[in-house]
Amino acid sequence: MVGGSVPVFDEIILSTALMNQVISFHDVSGILVCQAGCVLEELSQYLQERDFIMPLDLGAKGSCHIGGNVATNAGGLRFLRYGSLRGTVLGLEVVLADGTILNCLTSLRKDNTGYDLKQLFIGSEGTLGIITAVSILCPPRPKAVNVAFLGCPGFAEVLQTFSTCKGMLGEILSAFEFMDAECMQLVGQHLHLTNPVQESPFYVLVETSGSSAGHDTEKLTSVLEQVLNSGLVSDGTIATDQRKVQMLWALRERITEALSRDGYVFKYDISLPVERLYDLVIDLRTRVGPRAKHVVGYGHLGDGNLHLNVTAEAFSQELLSALEPYVYAWTAEQRGSVSAEHGLGFKKKNVLGYSKPPVAVKMMQQLKALLDPKGILNPYKTLPTQA
Amino acid sequence: MVGGSVPVFDEIILSTALMNQVISFHDVSGILVCQAGCVLEELSQYLQERDFIMPLDLGAKGSCHIGGNVATNAGGLRFLRYGSLRGTVLGLEVVLADGTILNCLTSLRKDNTGYDLKQLFIGSEGTLGIITAVSILCPPRPKAVNVAFLGCPGFAEVLQTFSTCKGMLGEILSAFEFMDAECMQLVGQHLHLTNPVQESPFYVLVETSGSSAGHDTEKLTSVLEQVLNSGLVSDGTIATDQRKVQMLWALRERITEALSRDGYVFKYDISLPVERLYDLVIDLRTRVGPRAKHVVGYGHLGDGNLHLNVTAEAFSQELLSALEPYVYAWTAEQRGSVSAEHGLGFKKKNVLGYSKPPVAVKMMQQLKALLDPKGILNPYKTLPTQA
Repeated sequence: MVGGSVPVFDEIILSTALMNQVISFHDVSGILVCQAGCVLEELSQYLQERDFIMPLDLGAKGSCHIGGNVATNAGGLRFLRYGSLRGTVLGLEVVLADGTILNCLTSLRKDNTGYDLKQLFIGSEGTLGIITAVSILCPPRPKAVNVAFLGCPGFAEVLQTFSTCKGMLGEILSAFEFMDAECMQLVGQHLHLTNPVQESPFYVLVETSGSSAGHDTEKLTSVLEQVLNSGLVSDGTIATDQRKVQMLWALRERITEALSRDGYVFKYDISLPVERLYDLVIDLRTRVGPRAKHVVGYGHLGDGNLHLNVTAEAFSQELLSALEPYVYAWTAEQRGSVSAEHGLGFKKKNVLGYSKPPVAVKMMQQLKALLDPKGILNPYKTLPTQA
Repeated sequence: MVGGSVPVFDEIILSTALMNQVISFHDVSGILVCQAGCVLEELSQYLQERDFIMPLDLGAKGSCHIGGNVATNAGGLRFLRYGSLRGTVLGLEVVLADGTILNCLTSLRKDNTGYDLKQLFIGSEGTLGIITAVSILCPPRPKAVNVAFLGCPGFAEVLQTFSTCKGMLGEILSAFEFMDAECMQLVGQHLHLTNPVQESPFYVLVETSGSSAGHDTEKLTSVLEQVLNSGLVSDGTIATDQRKVQMLWALRERITEALSRDGYVFKYDISLPVERLYDLVIDLRTRVGPRAKHVVGYGHLGDGNLHLNVTAEAFSQELLSALEPYVYAWTAEQRGSVSAEHGLGFKKKNVLGYSKPPVAVKMMQQLKALLDPKGILNPYKTLPTQA
């Protein structure tokens, strides 16, 4: 999406695909140590057989490598519950620009000996070193997963439903995703998926993951009663069996696919204060008018992460100029992030300044110069071209 | 404990005590932004009134500042459940060595724009910059807290009890602490606390925090039945009311106090693979023999964190020589950490090499030179004296 792993000029491509071995797994602590080229889905299967799960899950799980996930600080669908890789990654082995191996591959939950060097490499998109092995803390596999799909009359109600879920579901809340009516229309039109509830301006998908099916269903049912009775939700359905759970998730997960069938897609991945999350979508609809086919908003509401997408018949410079830098400036004004989970790569490196002050950008450039003085690691990416 | 905040030669002391204002709190996202001098306990009270809690809790909460907690990457009692400050701290404002203000005080859960500079300052003990404000993600206040106190016949049974609790309690498990028989003897002898279960070689404190008192008690009761029936636990008691919960926690939390009344205390705070956690205690008892009054082991078993303490009538160089560097070398052999949660400060800066390879130590020194070229920030601390 941002071209972080795409060579653009004179780069050499380095693949870790053959470094695909699990080094160790400890079933008391849940700590997995593996090589960087392990495919996320294969690690998930390995852990599932041992009654654990990976702390992250993404659409690209069938092909993405854990080393790449860490290098890009991937977010994804389990973020709300298990948090950032900055907390779950316990150790890394990294090859530095001069070929030295930095071995910080500890498998300890706590280690306060000196600076936490591994953090420099998490999310730095391969520009400071090449990750060759990862130690990561894996949670036990939840015994029960339930999903509720709800229709809300407005965005204020979506936010209040989120607060209600946090309060009543507490520790079992594992996802809180939202999509607008246009998203639902597009998955219906292009993928023939059926809306399971009555038509509404907004839809919410709530997932619980817990250790007792009975307790979890009871909690989710009380939430549903509460939000229906208080008018926060106009219609809702609950799934406890695997097949229906997957059907409901498909409505949310397949939005990207529906968008790509709608035409050329301009994509933005933004963090904003949750209460302002949808204002940008409304604002943009007015701004771009009939130049766009659709302006849609969806995403990980629980994490304050909006996926804002604009579709058009074809790429148009005029439409792009209406969108950028407007979207970035709008986000900066709310002190949001112009790249919530997808990094900066090649395409967004020059917009870093919208989310980070000059002092920070300068310090990043100093770190790059310290660790990669010749600029050989993933060049032309992440940091702005120096003035 | 490690003298991280104690001036030793010619330092100037800088206090942030007057920077004690909450800047903002958002009750949908749970994100708190405050100045660095806020006292942890006061923040906890502020949040409690709003039905949230701080993601960390420590014995020193009545006096410690949040800025210091972040600078030392404090662990504490809620670590097992809410994880490290590296995951919960969302943003920092830091004054750099040259007086520049680095403003990374975002209050966003996700932000992948460039390198995560704030991580450099978390746990660097004030040696790279001075934290002046913190943005932190706070979890909702659990509606129910239950505690079980159990006696186990051996350390293998303690580990199996931990696995059982992780499996059966899942998301509501919020603490798993252990102490040995000598700890219990000391809190009895010096503080007159009563052992609530029958005498055992090991004791375990299990805490649950959840959103439904009924469900949580049911889960904890099934665990107790299971571990009693399978012989993992020889005796146990459960507390659901606040008074008894506090009484059981006192047995664990007041060990430090009991130790200090026993004589001079040599203290070690070590991370080890959980299955080897207690071996060091047994080993040391043989090694030091009658030179010590007591060699005790207790700590955050759920985090692989052992507090190893040795008491003697008075300080003795001979006993110290028997302990160090033996304890550090033993820990290094298990690839453990010689400072799990207390940092290196002044006393431990020269043992960094037991937990980190020379390449890592060199990189830390380069970072220090980059960010504090004149060495004016918390000098003589954290990093080893350069050769």
